[in-house]
Order: sequence, then structure tokens, then C-alpha cells
Amino acid sequence: MSFQTEYKKILSRLDATLTDCVPIGLPERLSESMRYSLLGGGKRLRPVLFLSTVSVYGKTPSDNDYLCACALECIHTYSLIHDDLPSMDNDDVRRGNPTNHIVYGEATAVLAGDALLNLAFELLARACACDAKYVGVLSEFARDSGALGMVGGQAMEFEQETDVDAVRLNKINSLKTGKLIEAAFVGGAIAADRACDIEKWRAIARSFGAAFQLCDDLLDSDTDERSLVAVLGTDRAKEELLRLEKETEELLDGIDGDTEFPKSIASAFLLRVTDGL
Amino acid sequence: MSFQTEYKKILSRLDATLTDCVPIGLPERLSESMRYSLLGGGKRLRPVLFLSTVSVYGKTPSDNDYLCACALECIHTYSLIHDDLPSMDNDDVRRGNPTNHIVYGEATAVLAGDALLNLAFELLARACACDAKYVGVLSEFARDSGALGMVGGQAMEFEQETDVDAVRLNKINSLKTGKLIEAAFVGGAIAADRACDIEKWRAIARSFGAAFQLCDDLLDSDTDERSLVAVLGTDRAKEELLRLEKETEELLDGIDGDTEFPKSIASAFLLRVTDGL
Repeated sequence: MSFQTEYKKILSRLDATLTDCVPIGLPERLSESMRYSLLGGGKRLRPVLFLSTVSVYGKTPSDNDYLCACALECIHTYSLIHDDLPSMDNDDVRRGNPTNHIVYGEATAVLAGDALLNLAFELLARACACDAKYVGVLSEFARDSGALGMVGGQAMEFEQETDVDAVRLNKINSLKTGKLIEAAFVGGAIAADRACDIEKWRAIARSFGAAFQLCDDLLDSDTDERSLVAVLGTDRAKEELLRLEKETEELLDGIDGDTEFPKSIASAFLLRVTDGL
Repeated sequence: MSFQTEYKKILSRLDATLTDCVPIGLPERLSESMRYSLLGGGKRLRPVLFLSTVSVYGKTPSDNDYLCACALECIHTYSLIHDDLPSMDNDDVRRGNPTNHIVYGEATAVLAGDALLNLAFELLARACACDAKYVGVLSEFARDSGALGMVGGQAMEFEQETDVDAVRLNKINSLKTGKLIEAAFVGGAIAADRACDIEKWRAIARSFGAAFQLCDDLLDSDTDERSLVAVLGTDRAKEELLRLEKETEELLDGIDGDTEFPKSIASAFLLRVTDGL
């Protein structure tokens, strides 16, 4: 199966699971607000990375694996809704559409984010109830998305001093963006019963996560003064991206399994920038 | 042991566990903000109800039970922080102190709430990793705190029409306040390996939860126009409270165990009002 065909197949099953996972019978405005952000596009990078990691070991992702993948997308989506709030980044537009609080108001946006985070753990609990190995996945996701992970990175960004340096920016990025990518890879290895490979996947996540963030910054024409691209300069940032891309590929070679699919995903996401080099 | 002695003993172990549960090494402002709301007083009703339900069946609550109890307090605390936000209830004071966003700013308050909700599931995951029965507790907590539970109640309150009636208010209260109380009782029964009693505890939770909310509304001198007390009038509200108090006690009598402690808790919380009747 070609990369594109396989990717589309995964996306279609993912979208069907995501559509089903918001329970019915909710207060209408809350339900609409949750669906607006969860189902309104998005690259689905994190759930696809999770599922592709399961596949690396020759396993076909199960319904429980799809629940975990959807949980990851719920966590990612809640973080975007809260990140866009007026008191946070104050963004009016996301993925070309008005942000959640612009459409539904701030109170509903806060609650929709809260509800999506709760929903993530409800989905994970369903997987855990079927098979105790998913407790490890849930545990990894909770740690990576919390105060020592993604939320910690968001908080560091707000505590940002005016005098930014590359070390601190790398730390913020590794938490804010990197930790959910780590959750995807490490969670996928646990779901595939390969907890022995966790440290290898953490290294892959660090490398790919940093590349992904650099790539996003390079593509963002409206470069934040506090981004790594602004600090390193475009040329050095592109060099660093190429280095990280190569490193990701080499680290994937160290996994005993078929890593063609994650390699293709990495290229597809990173080549958006390096193609033009 | 007298009720007071037992209650204090539980509170002291609870506070020690809560103090330890916020991980070290967090961004400083985030960590302070989480501790400010989590450790700054509070009646600890929900965790105490959880632990007392375990005790009903003659079991001494374990370290894992305390993790679950603390998770419940983290969930309750996150909901208060978000509820107080300017875009929500816009409250400046909570438990006699400035609210979280007044002290730390809105962005940190949003993130501290998010971090506490993630932390709750991290604590629950630790219990699940020791004993799979806690997956049932985690699952119950996630459902009760999410869009079909507490968050759903908060959302209904914001969708409130001007024309309020008792039926709708009862529904909102049963979700917003009642569901975490249900989580405490039902979770406690699961932790005590008495899942067979779940439906009985749900009924107790409905009755006690409604009484607790009425009690809170009666004590609140600054009565909200949209509270049940405003709709029923003080006299009918007090009658209803007495009825619910009696019902709670009768329902507790239907449990095969030693229900003296939960009965004492119920009295201690509800007598604050009915003493004066």
C-alpha cells in the first residue's frame, strides 16, 4: 500500500472514531463547541504517530488503539482551545477558521477544553477496562500532557523573560510540543507490548519533536520574536532542521521493526520546508 | 474513636498526601498557583466521602485509596479555579482569600486548572498500575467530572434561560455538584470491591448531593436569583432539606456495613443549616 493510501485509510477510521466519541445528550452549546474544534480539520499528527508506532511491530491497530489515538487528539485539541483564549495567546483564527471562543464565547470555550480533557481519560479508561496494558499508555499520556509536560511548557512560555536564549526556547518547545509527540511514540510502543523500546522512542520523539517545531516556526511567516528561528536566524535554523531530520531517520533505523511508515510521515511533515532548501 | 477524632485523622493523612502530590521541578509560578488553590483550605468533603465509603465495608483505606481521594480533590479544585475566572463566574474571593486568577493572573489560573485535572488522572493511573480494580474508579471519575457530569452542569448554568424553574435547577445541581459526590460514593464502593452496591450509592449520592446544594444555597446570604432557594422560597427549601436529610439516612441504612461515619459526615454538613430550624 502506498504511503498516501495508508495515511488516508488511517485518517478515515480516526475521523469516524472521533465523530462517535463525543457523547450524545450533552448541553447543546457545549457539544457543538467540542465538535467544532475536535472535528474541524487538523493534521491528526499525534494520533497517526501513535497508530503508526503500533504498526511498526507488525500489529494492526485495534479498536482500543484507536480509542487511545482519539484521546491524544482530544488532549491536543483541548490545549489549542485554551491556548487561543484571550488571557493566553488571544488568537482569533485557527486553521483558517474563527477560534472556539470567538464562535462560542469564552466560558463555553474554557468548558469545552475541560470536557475534552476529561473525555480523553474516559476513552483511555475504556481501553484500560478491556486490557490492563493500556494503564501504561494512560499514565504516559497524563504525565506528558500535565504540569511536567505540555502544560508546564505553556506555563514556561508565559513566564518567559524578555531576554530569550536558545537553551530556554528548546526547553519550552520540548515540553509544549515535544511531550505530546513523545506520548504518541511511547504510548504506541506500550500498546504494541514493546515497553522495552520506550527509551529509543523517547529519543526519536525528542529529535522529531524538535524538527517539527522548527519546521512550524520556519513556515510561520509571522515569526514570533521569541521563536527559535528568530534567535538562530533562518539559515542556522534550516541547517539544524536538516540535522534533526537525519537524526530522526537514523534513530528510527535502530528500532527492530518496519519503520517505513513513520519515516514517511516524518518526511511528509518535515519536507514541507526542506524541499525548498 | 469519636467522629471528630476520626475525621481529623483522615484530614491529616489527606493533607500530607495532597502536599506530596504536586510534583517538584515545575515552572515556579505554575507550581505555586496549583498549591495555592489545592492546599489553601477547603472542607475536603469529596475525598472524605470516598474514604468513608471504603471504611463502611470494614476496610482501612490504603495508600492507593488516598491517591484516588486526592485525585477527587484535584478535580474539585480545578473546577473551582476555572469557575471563578472572569469569563465564568468572575469571582474575586474564594474561602476568604483572593481567587487564583486574582493572585496569579488569568493565564496561569487556566493552566493551573488544566494541570490539576491532568494530575488527578496521573494519581489515578498510579493506583491502577498497582491494582486493576482502580480502572473502574478512574472511569467513574472521568465520566462524572466531564461533559455528561460536572462540566455539563457548568455549561447548562451558562446556557441558563432567564425563565428558571425548579426542574431545570435540580438538573443543573445534580450535575454540577451532585456528580462529584456520586464519584466519591461510587468510587469508594468500587475501591472496596463492592461494585454490587453501586446503584445504592448512586441513590445516596443523589439524595445527599441535593441536600448539600440546598444547604449551601440556604447558607449563602447573597442568594443567587437562579438558585433553588430563590425559586422555592426559604421555607419550602428548608422542608425539602429535612426530607432529603432523612432520605439520605434511610438509604444509608440499606447498605450492609457500618454506615455510622458517613451518617455523621452527612449530619455535620447538613446540620449547619437544620440546627437553626
